[in-house]
Amino acid sequence: MRIAIDMDEVIADFCQKDIATFNRLFKMQLTQDMIGHGYTTTLYPQYNEAMKAIRNDPDFFRDMQVIEGAQEVVAKLNQEHEVFIVTNAMHFPRSVAGKYDWLKTHFPFLTDNQFVFCGNKVIIHADYLIDDSTGNLAVFSGTGLLFSSPHNLAVDHPLRMNSWQEVADYFSLN
Amino acid sequence: MRIAIDMDEVIADFCQKDIATFNRLFKMQLTQDMIGHGYTTTLYPQYNEAMKAIRNDPDFFRDMQVIEGAQEVVAKLNQEHEVFIVTNAMHFPRSVAGKYDWLKTHFPFLTDNQFVFCGNKVIIHADYLIDDSTGNLAVFSGTGLLFSSPHNLAVDHPLRMNSWQEVADYFSLN
Repeated sequence: MRIAIDMDEVIADFCQKDIATFNRLFKMQLTQDMIGHGYTTTLYPQYNEAMKAIRNDPDFFRDMQVIEGAQEVVAKLNQEHEVFIVTNAMHFPRSVAGKYDWLKTHFPFLTDNQFVFCGNKVIIHADYLIDDSTGNLAVFSGTGLLFSSPHNLAVDHPLRMNSWQEVADYFSLN
Repeated sequence: MRIAIDMDEVIADFCQKDIATFNRLFKMQLTQDMIGHGYTTTLYPQYNEAMKAIRNDPDFFRDMQVIEGAQEVVAKLNQEHEVFIVTNAMHFPRSVAGKYDWLKTHFPFLTDNQFVFCGNKVIIHADYLIDDSTGNLAVFSGTGLLFSSPHNLAVDHPLRMNSWQEVADYFSLN
């Protein structure tokens, strides 16, 4: 089976990095609990332009933490299935170099040919897409698995994965 | 219909830029006729590593010429169909920024969401793929149109486009 896997908030902890960066730059002490189902800039839209520029910097992605369990489960999926990392890099076109380096560092068992940087996941031809965005899942032609993230916890979706362990169980990995 | 369009040798004149760069750096006077169905480094494999590094530089793509007719016909296709530019950027991961800027300059009527940077076109979900590589067309699940380029002129393919005018005719554009 061909399984496409999103990057931000699925294998890379975007929200944690975003909050830490926001707090450092604007001398705040925001937590995810305070933000709820939004992002830092949902709460502080006046910093939208600044944070957009910061997220577009290739360095923004370099020290992002890996979501718990992602490495182990993606490695196992990669042994049994055709795996692609499919990330929306077009919000932040300059981020591609940083995202690429991050993938090479944390998922060294994947090859370059397994990476896709795009802007609209309607173009993805796979059996499954694991993604935290219901918008991405809505345009995808295969089966969409919603990966839980703070911003989608209130959303109703038939197939939700709360952790990488649940992904492992779903695909019956040992 | 969804139409995926390759970049190098289909809308961007990679070979011309590659030969000009090669000649300048190595004090040669190669022409495409001398190279035949290959590339500069097919003839001079001793410069393979050097040219690989040069092609990976974001600046390599910035002043590439547009293939004749590409802008006009892609603009018309974009009015009637769902168009995506799908380019293999994984041979040269650093080239993405240059390729992106080139697309923004020469195809300003396309949005970021219409760009895909990938390494294997098996992942592309579209009705058509216009590409100069038979390897890319072979793994594509839709209908492949081979766009003529010096290196594929000896290849047999059922649907060959010798120019953008032929693409316009194929899709019955006015």
